[in-house]
Amino acid sequence: MKKKMLAVVKKSPGIGAQLEEIEIPQLGPKDVLVRVKATAICGTDLHIYDWNTWAENAGIHMPVVMGHEFSGEIVEVGSQVNDLNPGDYVAGETHIPCGKCYQCNNGQQHICGNLQIFGVHTDGCFAEYTKIPAICARKIPNTISPEIGAVLEPLGTAIRSTLDIEVSGKKIAVIGCGPIGLFAIASAKAMGASCIIAIDVMEERLKLSKEIGANIAINPKDIDVVNEVMEITNGVGVDGFIDASGSTQAINQGFKYLRKGGEVALIGLPSAPISLDLGPDVVFKEAKIIGIHGREMFQTWIRMENMLEEGLLNINPVITHTMPLAKFEDAIELLKAGIGNKIVLIP
Amino acid sequence: MKKKMLAVVKKSPGIGAQLEEIEIPQLGPKDVLVRVKATAICGTDLHIYDWNTWAENAGIHMPVVMGHEFSGEIVEVGSQVNDLNPGDYVAGETHIPCGKCYQCNNGQQHICGNLQIFGVHTDGCFAEYTKIPAICARKIPNTISPEIGAVLEPLGTAIRSTLDIEVSGKKIAVIGCGPIGLFAIASAKAMGASCIIAIDVMEERLKLSKEIGANIAINPKDIDVVNEVMEITNGVGVDGFIDASGSTQAINQGFKYLRKGGEVALIGLPSAPISLDLGPDVVFKEAKIIGIHGREMFQTWIRMENMLEEGLLNINPVITHTMPLAKFEDAIELLKAGIGNKIVLIP
Amino acid sequence: MKKKMLAVVKKSPGIGAQLEEIEIPQLGPKDVLVRVKATAICGTDLHIYDWNTWAENAGIHMPVVMGHEFSGEIVEVGSQVNDLNPGDYVAGETHIPCGKCYQCNNGQQHICGNLQIFGVHTDGCFAEYTKIPAICARKIPNTISPEIGAVLEPLGTAIRSTLDIEVSGKKIAVIGCGPIGLFAIASAKAMGASCIIAIDVMEERLKLSKEIGANIAINPKDIDVVNEVMEITNGVGVDGFIDASGSTQAINQGFKYLRKGGEVALIGLPSAPISLDLGPDVVFKEAKIIGIHGREMFQTWIRMENMLEEGLLNINPVITHTMPLAKFEDAIELLKAGIGNKIVLIP
Amino acid sequence: MKKKMLAVVKKSPGIGAQLEEIEIPQLGPKDVLVRVKATAICGTDLHIYDWNTWAENAGIHMPVVMGHEFSGEIVEVGSQVNDLNPGDYVAGETHIPCGKCYQCNNGQQHICGNLQIFGVHTDGCFAEYTKIPAICARKIPNTISPEIGAVLEPLGTAIRSTLDIEVSGKKIAVIGCGPIGLFAIASAKAMGASCIIAIDVMEERLKLSKEIGANIAINPKDIDVVNEVMEITNGVGVDGFIDASGSTQAINQGFKYLRKGGEVALIGLPSAPISLDLGPDVVFKEAKIIGIHGREMFQTWIRMENMLEEGLLNINPVITHTMPLAKFEDAIELLKAGIGNKIVLIP
Repeated sequence: MKKKMLAVVKKSPGIGAQLEEIEIPQLGPKDVLVRVKATAICGTDLHIYDWNTWAENAGIHMPVVMGHEFSGEIVEVGSQVNDLNPGDYVAGETHIPCGKCYQCNNGQQHICGNLQIFGVHTDGCFAEYTKIPAICARKIPNTISPEIGAVLEPLGTAIRSTLDIEVSGKKIAVIGCGPIGLFAIASAKAMGASCIIAIDVMEERLKLSKEIGANIAINPKDIDVVNEVMEITNGVGVDGFIDASGSTQAINQGFKYLRKGGEVALIGLPSAPISLDLGPDVVFKEAKIIGIHGREMFQTWIRMENMLEEGLLNINPVITHTMPLAKFEDAIELLKAGIGNKIVLIP
Repeated sequence: MKKKMLAVVKKSPGIGAQLEEIEIPQLGPKDVLVRVKATAICGTDLHIYDWNTWAENAGIHMPVVMGHEFSGEIVEVGSQVNDLNPGDYVAGETHIPCGKCYQCNNGQQHICGNLQIFGVHTDGCFAEYTKIPAICARKIPNTISPEIGAVLEPLGTAIRSTLDIEVSGKKIAVIGCGPIGLFAIASAKAMGASCIIAIDVMEERLKLSKEIGANIAINPKDIDVVNEVMEITNGVGVDGFIDASGSTQAINQGFKYLRKGGEVALIGLPSAPISLDLGPDVVFKEAKIIGIHGREMFQTWIRMENMLEEGLLNINPVITHTMPLAKFEDAIELLKAGIGNKIVLIP
Repeated sequence: MKKKMLAVVKKSPGIGAQLEEIEIPQLGPKDVLVRVKATAICGTDLHIYDWNTWAENAGIHMPVVMGHEFSGEIVEVGSQVNDLNPGDYVAGETHIPCGKCYQCNNGQQHICGNLQIFGVHTDGCFAEYTKIPAICARKIPNTISPEIGAVLEPLGTAIRSTLDIEVSGKKIAVIGCGPIGLFAIASAKAMGASCIIAIDVMEERLKLSKEIGANIAINPKDIDVVNEVMEITNGVGVDGFIDASGSTQAINQGFKYLRKGGEVALIGLPSAPISLDLGPDVVFKEAKIIGIHGREMFQTWIRMENMLEEGLLNINPVITHTMPLAKFEDAIELLKAGIGNKIVLIP
Repeated sequence: MKKKMLAVVKKSPGIGAQLEEIEIPQLGPKDVLVRVKATAICGTDLHIYDWNTWAENAGIHMPVVMGHEFSGEIVEVGSQVNDLNPGDYVAGETHIPCGKCYQCNNGQQHICGNLQIFGVHTDGCFAEYTKIPAICARKIPNTISPEIGAVLEPLGTAIRSTLDIEVSGKKIAVIGCGPIGLFAIASAKAMGASCIIAIDVMEERLKLSKEIGANIAINPKDIDVVNEVMEITNGVGVDGFIDASGSTQAINQGFKYLRKGGEVALIGLPSAPISLDLGPDVVFKEAKIIGIHGREMFQTWIRMENMLEEGLLNINPVITHTMPLAKFEDAIELLKAGIGNKIVLIP
């Protein structure tokens, strides 16, 4: 096997990252080495690329290979790995659990008390090869293409939100039509949500949302969202909403058009504390709110894979572009311009 | 308004029932009078028609107007009814709660401790008009046809089973492809079950199951069901099964091909106690079993109506025949011959 | 029966209320008339007495008889009431459901879409007699004293919070040691919470919390609450917290010492929107939050009554004073001074 | 360290076992070696000792060191073990998961598809030292005595049953007052069950049940259990029952006195298939049944340890005898005679 590989490396604070040739990683006893078949760009990667305030405070040690969403083939396994083998087709679970903490002992390793994020706190997968702990290399069916395999991580987050608020037969809103919002719409559609209201400020994304399965698409720039949703739901409000925007205003609007007794899944990350009117919006409504940081390991994956194998998730339109890894800077520009939604890179 | 109406009346023990002209019912203060638009035949009606052992012990006082599944238009309301009006389009909820017992005070009125079954313990709806307590007259959207409106009661039971075992992204089996089994298959399909295995001994029903959405249809007469299901599920077993057969053998097979940690919804009524191997099949497997007798009032109805309004439930093929009420005896023959699945009668 | 009664009446905006003789209420067909045996003062009553901003906007039509927590004996029932009788011993459920809305049809009548609050939107129970819809007159066991019967409404709210976050074997915090916080502590103790941390700024209340069952009592004036709770829980944080304070600062501290995957019940009403750091405190933690506005009707009542009948709830110390109704102004002074916690008035 | 140890060894089919000196076990890379401080006798051990039909078919390879319940101190760890150290105080989790199967990937490793039972499929702990996979060595607080530490395995099973049927404020029955039934009573008491009805045919055990916390103890030999429970519950039935007997008759009685909508936890193992009247007892009642084979790893342990540390579980009376390991045959006789309930052996 060759010793060197191409990788997108963030070398120092400030905007940008570079494609360069570096050593292929050495494995620890519990790691596997994966030849990356496809890798996808997440909003987090944009923050790191741009080195914004979030990135500055995320505990990133440079130089670091960027990227955390991928699929690929195992080419080597560490000495203590006995349930994976070279040749296995895997996707990456980003959450690296410690295996020892309270949460890891409590069936919640995906929110480990000492959680490390692959590609943030470790070298990632914008590269020809990537090293990942065996526990985070999830074997997936061959019927899933490498491009789709590369987006299972955000897809799983979205699926969890629709499972948690039990969308079947319900009227829901999805706020924010970036990849996770669109994935949530596709999931909700597949699970029999009876009315899916997509909300975003960009027309291109709303168009995609309808293609994916939204019944109604609303642009808050054009229309009073709260009035509109209340009207659509005959004055009752939605049974639940999923926030994939992190927007203060949108979340507050969500609580206004949520019905009494409704449920909320929060995925989006506000960039700062936000003001909420807890009395009328949560206490009097008896709203149920759940924060979702990742996929249950691996309950969510199993159900996601089952649905993908049967072609139940209409997610192809979310991947607007597939490009060579070397073009990563073009990809980042497309995303910043709002032209790309999910972009997959092929090393 | 006229004073007399045609109705199918069971007048005495023994096989049969008669179409005859009787008085239109008088309302109590909490009742409504409904002009029946469509009514459907349930297995229970066959038992009463045939006057089998179950019927003999069901506490039926004759003469009784048969039938409990219907849709229609309210023509009169009792003096204390203030949330329904003449002209309202309704479907019948069969479970008449007392409103006073432990269950009625505990959010479980559908399994009231003093439960009366409409059309069994009271006069029913195989008639031009029917009287029903206002609490059991559920207003339904006009977009639902009278024929579908007439089958909401069994459809709701089926939907509850798929909601309770949370089928989205799961592999499930449905045992028994009479109307409730087929409705469960349609619901599971709409909610994103990734693999639905239909099981029945009649080829005609299996054919319908595939039309409705089953991925695989198995006839236990031809094949070893347990082996087959284990093979389909890669040796793991199904995540859940819904029994709509009441068959001792089929239920026992279900527990064999249920995966460890799987869930079971029991709707079918065995005609006698059945033998279960609780140690290996329930305790070691940590199976979760729930009995389902009816629809939650009215949580299940709301989600059912939402799904029907959006056309998410592929149930039209289940209604194999629509006939005039006067032909009820022909309908019963079609059902007994296994030619009819669900038959709707029009008064 | 006599025609006149003494009642505490709020006659006009501004501070105060008056004890005066007024007509005993006339019953509608679905009402019952109760001779009040005991009635308790809630924080809401103080707001109305003081006529603060909340009261100004609460939709109160004056003159109004104040008070909503009571126990008593039915002396007369309306013409359509058939499950209650004169002589029945009842406590008041404050939430008056419409019986027709989405929530009332969805098993959530306690958060009815057209909810009326007894004693706020209707005349209340600081009186010799009170009129209440039959559905809100809950028959209670004779083994419950009138004083305890008068506080079942807030006690039920507290019990729901401990049921919802399933406290058995868990470490929890209860913020705010007014009556609802103390009742939550008593419930958590009875349900086997293994560590109950009481938090309040008033020493008198903290003393009571220990008497009721708190393992640890913390005064944020003296100590860094977040550090202290993290230390007590070995750096993990609490499994859940119940907020009965409505304090911005205390709720934010709660989210800091909540463990990843922990649960939150919000009962307290902040007087204005509050700022929350949703990213780290809810999304990354996968916190589950539920707002609680009242008791499930009547699931919560049943379990509360069961526990009271067996003497499992150590709540007597919460009722610091029992006084004649005529002394209501003295009672209000004691509450404002922080000397009284829960005060019961006897008409 | 010494090379030999005393152990109770089952060497061949037929009744009996022998205390003999054997080699101290060699560790694999993921094992730990524990010096046994206390070990307890389970019903399973009696079956193996007696070599009954169950034992013949349990897949036991002899010679085998008997015993699976223990506490002790780690004296050596395998080369790949990094979260445990010599000196750690641990209790044994009996369920050895494979870490690779569907259930292990689905958050249900305690019902692993390839489950091995420690002390049945491997050498056990009736010995001075025992080898166990590190994943099954649970660190426990020093405040838990070795005797109590030795019974955490069955105690955890009992606790899970009371958590699963959410006993707080409910009326429940516990069938079978061997150690697991008694532990369930102690748990239910600690969690605020308002009425605990203990059922057993042996007076000695019923006496213990009252000491532990049962409100009422019933001997079906003396009394019609179903009538009695229905009377105690005012004709409603219990909210739930826990079966720790495996008795056909007792389980059937349980379903008769279960209220509509009630919940059932099945722990006991019937020795053969049993006949159940599913129609009236499960479907019409909408009973919810869950089989319980073990403790969730380690959710149940955490809550159990929390409760034990605070002294919330009144379980000391269940341990009727503590004896030297060498007296194991006497202990077995005491258990067979019904004199002992739980017996702890000290190596």
